[in-house]
Amino acid sequence: MQAQQILLDSRPDGLPTHANFKLVPVSLPAIQMGEFLVKNLWMSVDPYMRGRMVDRESYIAPFVLGEALEGGSIGEVIESRHSSFPVGAKVTSMLGWRSHYVTDGSDHTLLPETPLSESHFLGVLGMPGMTAWTGLNRIAELKEGETLFVSAASGAVGSVACQLAQLMGCKVIASVGSDEKATHLKSLGVDAVINYKTVDNLSAALQVAAPQGVDVYFENVGGEHFAAALDNMNDHGRIAVCGMIAQYNDTAPTPGPSNLALIIMKKLKIEGFIVFEHWAHYPEFTQQMAQWLSTGAVKAEQTIYEGLASAPDAFIGLFEGKNRGKMLVKLS
Amino acid sequence: MQAQQILLDSRPDGLPTHANFKLVPVSLPAIQMGEFLVKNLWMSVDPYMRGRMVDRESYIAPFVLGEALEGGSIGEVIESRHSSFPVGAKVTSMLGWRSHYVTDGSDHTLLPETPLSESHFLGVLGMPGMTAWTGLNRIAELKEGETLFVSAASGAVGSVACQLAQLMGCKVIASVGSDEKATHLKSLGVDAVINYKTVDNLSAALQVAAPQGVDVYFENVGGEHFAAALDNMNDHGRIAVCGMIAQYNDTAPTPGPSNLALIIMKKLKIEGFIVFEHWAHYPEFTQQMAQWLSTGAVKAEQTIYEGLASAPDAFIGLFEGKNRGKMLVKLS
Repeated sequence: MQAQQILLDSRPDGLPTHANFKLVPVSLPAIQMGEFLVKNLWMSVDPYMRGRMVDRESYIAPFVLGEALEGGSIGEVIESRHSSFPVGAKVTSMLGWRSHYVTDGSDHTLLPETPLSESHFLGVLGMPGMTAWTGLNRIAELKEGETLFVSAASGAVGSVACQLAQLMGCKVIASVGSDEKATHLKSLGVDAVINYKTVDNLSAALQVAAPQGVDVYFENVGGEHFAAALDNMNDHGRIAVCGMIAQYNDTAPTPGPSNLALIIMKKLKIEGFIVFEHWAHYPEFTQQMAQWLSTGAVKAEQTIYEGLASAPDAFIGLFEGKNRGKMLVKLS
Repeated sequence: MQAQQILLDSRPDGLPTHANFKLVPVSLPAIQMGEFLVKNLWMSVDPYMRGRMVDRESYIAPFVLGEALEGGSIGEVIESRHSSFPVGAKVTSMLGWRSHYVTDGSDHTLLPETPLSESHFLGVLGMPGMTAWTGLNRIAELKEGETLFVSAASGAVGSVACQLAQLMGCKVIASVGSDEKATHLKSLGVDAVINYKTVDNLSAALQVAAPQGVDVYFENVGGEHFAAALDNMNDHGRIAVCGMIAQYNDTAPTPGPSNLALIIMKKLKIEGFIVFEHWAHYPEFTQQMAQWLSTGAVKAEQTIYEGLASAPDAFIGLFEGKNRGKMLVKLS
């Protein structure tokens, strides 16, 4: 059958552009015994994919020029010669960026039956939600009553981190890039929200928002945010380093903060993490999160682009702050 | 009686100079019941004292202008009306920078009898040695067979860190600021020594010295050393942040490294520490270290200045790399 997929056509220099992507038709072979055909319903775009567009050694292999991109997706089996994946089954895989594909089921997981939209398995119930939960609980060891600072706080990871901390009885300070995002986070009950684009001095604004200091910083941004957090951390504070999106499109080295000596003065612990290394805890996480979602204790916001052709726009939009909550592409 | 002490006469701007110190005579009162008179034998100068010369909140109160400086010292009781501190007893205190003083014994510790020079209790058996031991064992959790990188490696802390790691069967890479220091560290059996002042690119030099990567970095310097370590850390590497001496005399903010995103990629853990918070483990440490010293497994080098008047030179010399091992002032 005829399908469509998006290739990496050139490696971005700075912010990705449409020229880096190429939507192409592809002929899929008939399925063989032990294979099945998937129609993708949803695909995810995530900031970490920017790293895979660079040709360098990292914790995950770089995308190959001229080949289809990869990323989290949810699809439906529409033809099958595989007993474990019957027609009608919903599956998650890393084979996003394509309308259909044939597979033998390697690295595919059947989605459980749920009254929730299956798209949440790419967001609050999937990798981004698990990232927030892991960073707070397993890396920073956030405790009840502490003060948390979250950057990129209206994003897929940040918005979950804010809500999980609130459920733990923590005071939450959030940083976002627009007043509209700030208003929304306040409506979720976040204690204080800073629009970093409209304050003169982020460190001073954080001090006003958290006069008692910050116990845990959930780092998604880097740069000025990292420096402001260091300034405001309490003794023995912890920083879970999840991402540094401010730097992903840098074309030249950007100097780091000048206040790193505070790591000593305040006896801080700073730890980077990759959620996939913690995946053994995914069942524990989903059990808790599904309950919070169903009771409304956690609200899962999504920003949805329509159609495979819009995927590059959705991805580029991540770096322009165009998403509130999880950025998704609805494929059919 | 007439004694001498050194006051903080002005706060340094950049590298301290003689103008910041003032040697003055002081009349000591006769001792009262419950007091004793100490003649200082040795005093310590340490990089952390530079921080106390700045008037700011920190983990330890700043020095007061016009008052005598403080720092580790070892003295002998020469007059006593205190039953626990008889004449002839040797004591440690934080009342360095003076020839004699009268005290009620608060914050004084009696030195144990030992065949070693009592001056080692300001160095390898004291705060600097305990700092090396704490950073490796309790902060970075160095394990047998790992690769350690140590900056300021010929200093009081660094030289002990190198030797402790060798005793653990680790590969040790050291960075120092002179060829003479490098030769000396090699004679102690350190696997590779980099003179950072003569290499073009510290990160590349570290890669040559540690092609297998660095598991633990013992950070005493900051700046370019921190960046080079990040470049060369292995996955799940640990950085024990003990000091950043390169920055202590900065008069303007110095930007940090541009490669902090490696904290995420490599899943690094970076932790600052202050040795005094770990003092409950001091008996465990001294028991081990006294044995290593007596068998020659650890060699304790000292750089000794003579006389109280030379203390400012000794202190300033710390930032000019003039010491090999522990920098001390012999007072009498």
